[in-house]
Amino acid sequence: MNAAVIGASGYSGEELVRLLSRHPNVTLAAVTSRSLAGKPVADVMPALRHLVGELEFTHSDPVVLAAREDLDVFFLALPHGVASEYADPLFQAGKTVIDLSADFRLKSTAVYEQYYGQAHPAPHLLAAAPYVIPELADDQWKSASLIACPGCYPTSVQLPLVPLLKQGIVKPAGIVINSYSGVSGAGRTVAEDFIYCERNESMKGYGMPKHRHLSEIEEQLEKAAFADCIVQFNPHLAPMSRGISTTIVAKANGSLDNLYASWNATFAGKPFVNVLPSGSYPDTKHVSGTNRADISAVYDPRTDNFVITSVIDNLLKGASGQAVQLLNLKFGFAETAGLL
Amino acid sequence: MNAAVIGASGYSGEELVRLLSRHPNVTLAAVTSRSLAGKPVADVMPALRHLVGELEFTHSDPVVLAAREDLDVFFLALPHGVASEYADPLFQAGKTVIDLSADFRLKSTAVYEQYYGQAHPAPHLLAAAPYVIPELADDQWKSASLIACPGCYPTSVQLPLVPLLKQGIVKPAGIVINSYSGVSGAGRTVAEDFIYCERNESMKGYGMPKHRHLSEIEEQLEKAAFADCIVQFNPHLAPMSRGISTTIVAKANGSLDNLYASWNATFAGKPFVNVLPSGSYPDTKHVSGTNRADISAVYDPRTDNFVITSVIDNLLKGASGQAVQLLNLKFGFAETAGLL
Amino acid sequence: MNAAVIGASGYSGEELVRLLSRHPNVTLAAVTSRSLAGKPVADVMPALRHLVGELEFTHSDPVVLAAREDLDVFFLALPHGVASEYADPLFQAGKTVIDLSADFRLKSTAVYEQYYGQAHPAPHLLAAAPYVIPELADDQWKSASLIACPGCYPTSVQLPLVPLLKQGIVKPAGIVINSYSGVSGAGRTVAEDFIYCERNESMKGYGMPKHRHLSEIEEQLEKAAFADCIVQFNPHLAPMSRGISTTIVAKANGSLDNLYASWNATFAGKPFVNVLPSGSYPDTKHVSGTNRADISAVYDPRTDNFVITSVIDNLLKGASGQAVQLLNLKFGFAETAGLL
Amino acid sequence: MNAAVIGASGYSGEELVRLLSRHPNVTLAAVTSRSLAGKPVADVMPALRHLVGELEFTHSDPVVLAAREDLDVFFLALPHGVASEYADPLFQAGKTVIDLSADFRLKSTAVYEQYYGQAHPAPHLLAAAPYVIPELADDQWKSASLIACPGCYPTSVQLPLVPLLKQGIVKPAGIVINSYSGVSGAGRTVAEDFIYCERNESMKGYGMPKHRHLSEIEEQLEKAAFADCIVQFNPHLAPMSRGISTTIVAKANGSLDNLYASWNATFAGKPFVNVLPSGSYPDTKHVSGTNRADISAVYDPRTDNFVITSVIDNLLKGASGQAVQLLNLKFGFAETAGLL
Repeated sequence: MNAAVIGASGYSGEELVRLLSRHPNVTLAAVTSRSLAGKPVADVMPALRHLVGELEFTHSDPVVLAAREDLDVFFLALPHGVASEYADPLFQAGKTVIDLSADFRLKSTAVYEQYYGQAHPAPHLLAAAPYVIPELADDQWKSASLIACPGCYPTSVQLPLVPLLKQGIVKPAGIVINSYSGVSGAGRTVAEDFIYCERNESMKGYGMPKHRHLSEIEEQLEKAAFADCIVQFNPHLAPMSRGISTTIVAKANGSLDNLYASWNATFAGKPFVNVLPSGSYPDTKHVSGTNRADISAVYDPRTDNFVITSVIDNLLKGASGQAVQLLNLKFGFAETAGLL
Repeated sequence: MNAAVIGASGYSGEELVRLLSRHPNVTLAAVTSRSLAGKPVADVMPALRHLVGELEFTHSDPVVLAAREDLDVFFLALPHGVASEYADPLFQAGKTVIDLSADFRLKSTAVYEQYYGQAHPAPHLLAAAPYVIPELADDQWKSASLIACPGCYPTSVQLPLVPLLKQGIVKPAGIVINSYSGVSGAGRTVAEDFIYCERNESMKGYGMPKHRHLSEIEEQLEKAAFADCIVQFNPHLAPMSRGISTTIVAKANGSLDNLYASWNATFAGKPFVNVLPSGSYPDTKHVSGTNRADISAVYDPRTDNFVITSVIDNLLKGASGQAVQLLNLKFGFAETAGLL
Repeated sequence: MNAAVIGASGYSGEELVRLLSRHPNVTLAAVTSRSLAGKPVADVMPALRHLVGELEFTHSDPVVLAAREDLDVFFLALPHGVASEYADPLFQAGKTVIDLSADFRLKSTAVYEQYYGQAHPAPHLLAAAPYVIPELADDQWKSASLIACPGCYPTSVQLPLVPLLKQGIVKPAGIVINSYSGVSGAGRTVAEDFIYCERNESMKGYGMPKHRHLSEIEEQLEKAAFADCIVQFNPHLAPMSRGISTTIVAKANGSLDNLYASWNATFAGKPFVNVLPSGSYPDTKHVSGTNRADISAVYDPRTDNFVITSVIDNLLKGASGQAVQLLNLKFGFAETAGLL
Repeated sequence: MNAAVIGASGYSGEELVRLLSRHPNVTLAAVTSRSLAGKPVADVMPALRHLVGELEFTHSDPVVLAAREDLDVFFLALPHGVASEYADPLFQAGKTVIDLSADFRLKSTAVYEQYYGQAHPAPHLLAAAPYVIPELADDQWKSASLIACPGCYPTSVQLPLVPLLKQGIVKPAGIVINSYSGVSGAGRTVAEDFIYCERNESMKGYGMPKHRHLSEIEEQLEKAAFADCIVQFNPHLAPMSRGISTTIVAKANGSLDNLYASWNATFAGKPFVNVLPSGSYPDTKHVSGTNRADISAVYDPRTDNFVITSVIDNLLKGASGQAVQLLNLKFGFAETAGLL
């Protein structure tokens, strides 16, 4: 199976190149970037020098790519809006497309327009494009050939929360989510706010109260809860390269035992979600460089809240690792292939 | 005026030595530590080599210190429990004592016992020992000679929240507080969990749901609200040396204009609290090394919550800087003396 | 093939466990530690939770281990002195032993005694134990069953310098080496000097002028140069978790073209050494998490010196990665097996 | 006395604003920047919110500034070349000018042209503009009204080395200097190479073998040695915000006692240079935020070299702090005024 990474100039693109270069069932056959076409991948991603050999960035327009018979699966690491320009012809040509952008994450075009400031670029494809966190989805999605890979914050939120909402173990009203992301969450953005001396030794909130990922979080939580689920979502920047630490406060509608039973049932046999005992705290360092999520919870009898903490590597389980996990599951490879 | 720092071996002690060495109205006349007695301060605090000259650590027991006529004011940078052993004789001897421990922060001895696991060591002194965040207290406290200096997390919480609770602009029920502290919050603790490679690139919660500072936060918030105020307080460690970033979600009981009017009235003319416009985010880096708090808020019409963010330097406005600010105000020095 | 990691409580041990758990040709069958015996590996190394399953630390004395027929190869991640206590019976029992300690690195027992402050614990084994940087050694070593895996600083020094000394392209006299190591170079040492707040934002030298690794560097450089080679070696700590950056100043005895020709010939086909063009600077970040060394050089006509820079991950190419590379080569596995 | 900071948009400018705002003998009366004119200083330098009040950036051309009778002393925090455009008219108007650029550091216009790629912009001023590290200069410079403030690397090198070269305690030939700078050494440069994720956890050399500061280092060392002094200077970037760590290897031409006697004589009574005992290692963290240099040395009998280490804060003793120290000394203020 031959894979292509489209728009590989950022950090998620780099992780895709890393993972696919080492993947036992896939050949990384093309890496594209408008701005980097013609450059050796090894020069742009020096951390991958030992993996990428002589591979070069290419630039091909969507139609040309769609016509290439040697390419089977496409990972889109493109900005929203642009992703659709590729997804449409590739999908029409029968290719498998795993999209890491926001274009197919929201099922409501109205919400998309509200949060992304533009009309949805490909509404006709939405029905065909399941949104998949593999540990939370049933197997139906595997027949799709266009798959929306979830965002980083949303993954850290949904993994612990969706099973509890589905089973009514937490109440959907009044949920408060605080998330802290490493700076790579902003991608390879070159701006004063992201230079080393501005971010080092710095913690700050941003984008409150209506960060773009809120739309995706709420749409999915409401689907799980079969109820309105208006959450307070507070994203922050933390002085580290990678990792998301999410802390969720939700009203209990069951016991801590119920909560753990739900998690244990949901994640039994899932290699990439680790349920930690109550009172043990997930640490971003422990999942950095892995596709794993660690989750845990305590119950506070004083407030009748659960306090749930989860950690992921924003570039792996929050983006490229999860994308490769989707590939593995769709094509029947080992779920962990290329991901250990 | 001659000052002594008692128990100066930790980071708060070091900041006290730094601030008092530069203070225009005070002479740092004694620095004590059981474990370090006889050592030059410059060797233990090499960052202060240019400030401390030949000063040495001494060890004197509380009675001896209380009898010294050359010492006027004592800063206690001691563990809870131990602080009382010094505070009592010093207070009886008519000295001014500014205590950075938890011993006189809580007015309820029952709560003290519950959170600190021991009977209160000096309940007879509690009535004489006001708990003072200077921007929030009326001037009465200045006549006290034993003053409880607030904790780091509690300062970051109370500064923005107390005025709003007093004026009923937020509802006291259902408040959720997430705080992220630099590693110096754990002091100079030598333990595997605090070595560089364990904390670097690491974010994690701890001590949930009942961190010791919760007791102090709730006692003060309830006093401000004249109502029960059971909060969810989630402390975390962040990969930086200094700083606390606190994010508070509270139900609105007034408009954002009301909130800002309350803050502006409370903090007008206060040199160490800076009210930032809504949509502008306080950053720990901007207050690091200062005695300043920056605070800001947004209103979310979707949830009817305010989201309030505050930042301080945990060792300065959260400990030693605030202690010196108390000294300045009590003795009529410029509020900013030695603190700019 | 079944492997055991002996003394796995430190960071090198953790890397060995990580690498061997993923190795396609090896089963990690035992992980030992005196202090951790009985504990699940997943609890002690939470970053490896998805890799180690139910594996537990055991404690077995050397004789018992030597008698186990199910174990084929032993990695010793033990302090010097202690390593010999295991190496000797394991070697006598015909096991393959890859020793990451200093015990078999020096061929001179006098130098060992001088630098390590004790008589050599197993001088009778020295002749049987080759010191091997695989890119620099001829294939003879593969028949040995006790192999000394080089130290981190020495690897960063020898990779670029040994070929040049062998071919006389630099002069052996007057070499100056400055190295900067991430804090994991000190292992999991719990001491005040290694807590986060002491090392963050801190650069300092240490152990000058006679760091233990100097003995190993000089013995090997002299062997390469067939001449005395007394170097100035200046180790430093840098505020990062992993990585060594080494900068070598050596008198030119040939042209920059000669230097690059030597390197290109030495490292052609070697997957783990990357020769960068002159004027391009190796970066620890680019090799972090890999078994790769990046090297480069400039010539300064003003001083007639080469300035050579090299970077490695101190825990991988500087320790555990190189150890697995030795395993791969000795047993005819792909050189990169388990190391990409 | 009224001071102006010209070109205050970078990190050195920010430090000047900080120091001058707190200075007991100086009023900061103007802060200029072409790009920021009209903006409140507090918005651009949020860390200084409590210090700068309503002060705004202005833009005035050099002639207008020179005509202002209310301004006495000007700090130029401008790029080389541009600094001369201001220095010339200000000097002609009889103002005191302390220039932090390279324009007046080199006395050889040929060397300036070679290293800075342009003809010297104001050669007629060179004779009037002494280059001053205050601890190393005799008092004559105080009558000058245009003063060249040394660079950061050069200060870290000259402080320990100039006394030794003057007294012949080290040999001028064959000196090797390795320096590691925090990222603020690159100023507030917005470029991919300086974004957080590229610099965090990264050590690398750059600009070898002929960094611009080499010209300044060699000119000064040769002046001290009365001899040729061609050094190898290797600058590097370290993953921290502030600080320079410099390690110098120089052939001994005297004993370690001679070296320390020279330093002790040179730095006796100097508040900002701290001589540490041999075997004690200067640490950037200990001088961060101060105007202090810490220096130390060991002697290696094996190589007959001294290994000298020094640390400074690149933005303070390496730039703005030293500039204020020059102001203090020139005008007879306490040397430490505004600098503790």
